[in-house]
Formats: sequence, C-alpha cells, structure tokens
Amino acid sequence: MMAWPGGGKLPIAAEPPEGFDDWCPPIVAAPLHESEAGELARSFAALADPARLRLFSLIAAQPEGEVCACALVEPLGRSQPTVSHHLRVLYEAGLVDREKRGTWVWYRARPERLEALRSTLAAMSPTADVR
Amino acid sequence: MMAWPGGGKLPIAAEPPEGFDDWCPPIVAAPLHESEAGELARSFAALADPARLRLFSLIAAQPEGEVCACALVEPLGRSQPTVSHHLRVLYEAGLVDREKRGTWVWYRARPERLEALRSTLAAMSPTADVR
Repeated sequence: MMAWPGGGKLPIAAEPPEGFDDWCPPIVAAPLHESEAGELARSFAALADPARLRLFSLIAAQPEGEVCACALVEPLGRSQPTVSHHLRVLYEAGLVDREKRGTWVWYRARPERLEALRSTLAAMSPTADVR
Repeated sequence: MMAWPGGGKLPIAAEPPEGFDDWCPPIVAAPLHESEAGELARSFAALADPARLRLFSLIAAQPEGEVCACALVEPLGRSQPTVSHHLRVLYEAGLVDREKRGTWVWYRARPERLEALRSTLAAMSPTADVR
C-alpha cells in the first residue's frame, strides 16, 4: 500500500491524491475473528437451504415450543428421509434440541443460537451504532 | 395421521392416548412460503463461509459506509482472487453494492437485505411474541 503523501490522519474513502492513481485508502476495524466466524458460518449454512429454513421456522413457530418430527413431513412437502436429513443438519448446527419419547423424536428451537446469529447481523448493520 | 380419539380441540405436544403409540400430534402455523424461503436461503448461503462472513463484517464496519476492494486483502489474509470471488458472491446475494471509481471497485453493505435476514431470525425466535 502506498503511503498517504500528506501525512497525518488518513481520511477514509478519500479520493486518491494527484499522481497516486493506484493509491489504496486504508480501512478501520478488524473483521470477526476466524474462530468466531467459523462457528457462525456453520449456523448460517444450516439456514442456507430453503427446505431447512422452512423446517426451522415451523419448529420455532410452535406455541408449546416443541414439535414431533412426525408432524413435519406433511407441511414441508418433502419425504420422511429428506426431513430427517434436514433435522439432523439443524441439530448438528446447534439450532435445535431433540428428545426421543416413545416412537417419535421431538424437536425444539434453541433460542441462544438464534440470538447469536441475530446479534451478529445487528452488529454488522451500518446503522448499528444509532439503534 | 391417526385421528385424535377424544375429539374436540387437539392438544399440542400431548402424550399419545392409550393404545395410540404411533399417534402423531398436530402442529400449528404454516412455514415460510417456498419463494420467500428461497430468497432468504440464498442470502444466508452468502454468509455461510467464514472468510465471506469476515469480509462482510469488514465492509459493514466502515464508518464511511464504504470500502475500497484493494484494502480488503490484507486484513482478510486471503489472496486477491479469493477476495474478488467472495465479493462477487456477496454482491450477487444482494448483500453489498459496488461502484467502480478509477482503478478500484468500492463496496458498501446494503442495510435492507441485512434487515430482511434479521427480521426473519427475529420472527423465528421462540420469544418473538413477547419482544
């Protein structure tokens, strides 16, 4: 990176000074830490499939906070093995808890994981500092 | 699905009635619509990579709201082609805008897209109705 020719505090998003056509203005703020970004990215990946996103919204929408896996096949319009696969991905990403009761497995959303994702997006908002 | 033997209003998350071991309790609420889920899933997919998540956080963190692509390589610790690839994915997912000025391309976060993702997560929160 070419040094700012005027010296002193570096302006952000300034026009390049004359004769410095390839001058690259500096940036502020460090990105998310690698380890933190890895965990968050895994959770976002779990929501990066339309069927899985609908499945998760269905689980989270239950007023009792939990839902039997058997009841998820029909509203999702996918086969039982497909629903089971998506439920496993959501569970492994830490977005849902599960519990076996008799014949069926029951699922509930994990609010703390969802809250971590919401906080991440809120912190990234360009207007985060005025909210 | 086997019918509720007692008739009347169906309890959610109830124990199966005696002799109905494979009874599947009903659920409430429709999932996200398919088309809406598809668009949201594409945006979540753009954030489902640690390097891309860090890149986006870096763009969104700039106090002037924009950043020159040239300044993103060093803090991200990735090669220029890798950074360019991730920037293109973020742009195609509608998470950032871009503008060419002289030698460089400048990027800025699109708050409306981020807000759509935040709203989705907020609506999915089990405690959404009390916030």
